[in-house]
Amino acid sequence: MEFDIERDTKILARTPLVIRALLGGLGREWSHSNYRPGTWSPHEVAGHLIHGERTDWIPRARMILKEGESREFEPFDRKGHEELCRESSLGELLEVFERERNESLAALRALRLTDEKLRRRGRHPALGTVTLSELLATWVVHDLNHIAQICKAMAYQHKSEVGPWEAYLSILGKPAPR
Amino acid sequence: MEFDIERDTKILARTPLVIRALLGGLGREWSHSNYRPGTWSPHEVAGHLIHGERTDWIPRARMILKEGESREFEPFDRKGHEELCRESSLGELLEVFERERNESLAALRALRLTDEKLRRRGRHPALGTVTLSELLATWVVHDLNHIAQICKAMAYQHKSEVGPWEAYLSILGKPAPR
Repeated sequence: MEFDIERDTKILARTPLVIRALLGGLGREWSHSNYRPGTWSPHEVAGHLIHGERTDWIPRARMILKEGESREFEPFDRKGHEELCRESSLGELLEVFERERNESLAALRALRLTDEKLRRRGRHPALGTVTLSELLATWVVHDLNHIAQICKAMAYQHKSEVGPWEAYLSILGKPAPR
Repeated sequence: MEFDIERDTKILARTPLVIRALLGGLGREWSHSNYRPGTWSPHEVAGHLIHGERTDWIPRARMILKEGESREFEPFDRKGHEELCRESSLGELLEVFERERNESLAALRALRLTDEKLRRRGRHPALGTVTLSELLATWVVHDLNHIAQICKAMAYQHKSEVGPWEAYLSILGKPAPR
């Protein structure tokens, strides 16, 4: 369905609450365990989401509006959260994420986006031409992707404990191909 | 990690809050759309979770404690939520789920489960011998599985709107094989 900025950015406002409801106050067994070598724990996902607030969504939206396709986005650093994660507990990350997400949404409102602005184009270093509307729809889907990833990391901690039920629980299976 | 009833059933108590944070107050575009023919919408997932409270987790736990392997569980009806879903809005389902989940957790505490009881066995109609501990670990993973499924159903509503970013969003890919 067509992206609707009023309707769909409500989902962005909820993500900090969803992650807090999933994880807040649970022990490190749940928050600091990943699901395969090289994958992220919920704690790392929280750090990655903060890094996105700082370097991805609003900075790229501003760049599209200011410079259009004339300048390529900075590549997103998929390891950009590592220092933050080393220094911060999950509780601290959840607080920072909630605050910075609210700031991002205030910045988004301040852009006063119209349909014309939403059609403006920018240049992604790997994907080529993208629109502002696609960037914002991606922000929403990216949140949902990482909430699902947190669920997957948590579920894996009981992969052995479910016994023969493993066969019925698709979240314990191989990840979908990229 | 080994199933710990005190620690791990905390996750069960949070699921209604997580689903409410994800969906409460959003429109039917988000709550009543599935992600491929034959899959469930978030509204149907909520109905399925209620049906599980009524016919799966606590009833099977009681049957294991009372009858052991002498009697097979009733097969779970994967369409058992359909009538409930036809009759109820998402808001109604979320209220019912929250109330019945709390009742299930009270019933679980009343069973005063010990390590010995958690090792007791029952008989699943398709999977054969299972333990009470496996049933309870499955309950936790099943919740996480369906939260992730709600995220997937929501994400799919913007599958086209993300443009070329689709390639980076694994939640928009094919589901993991069962």
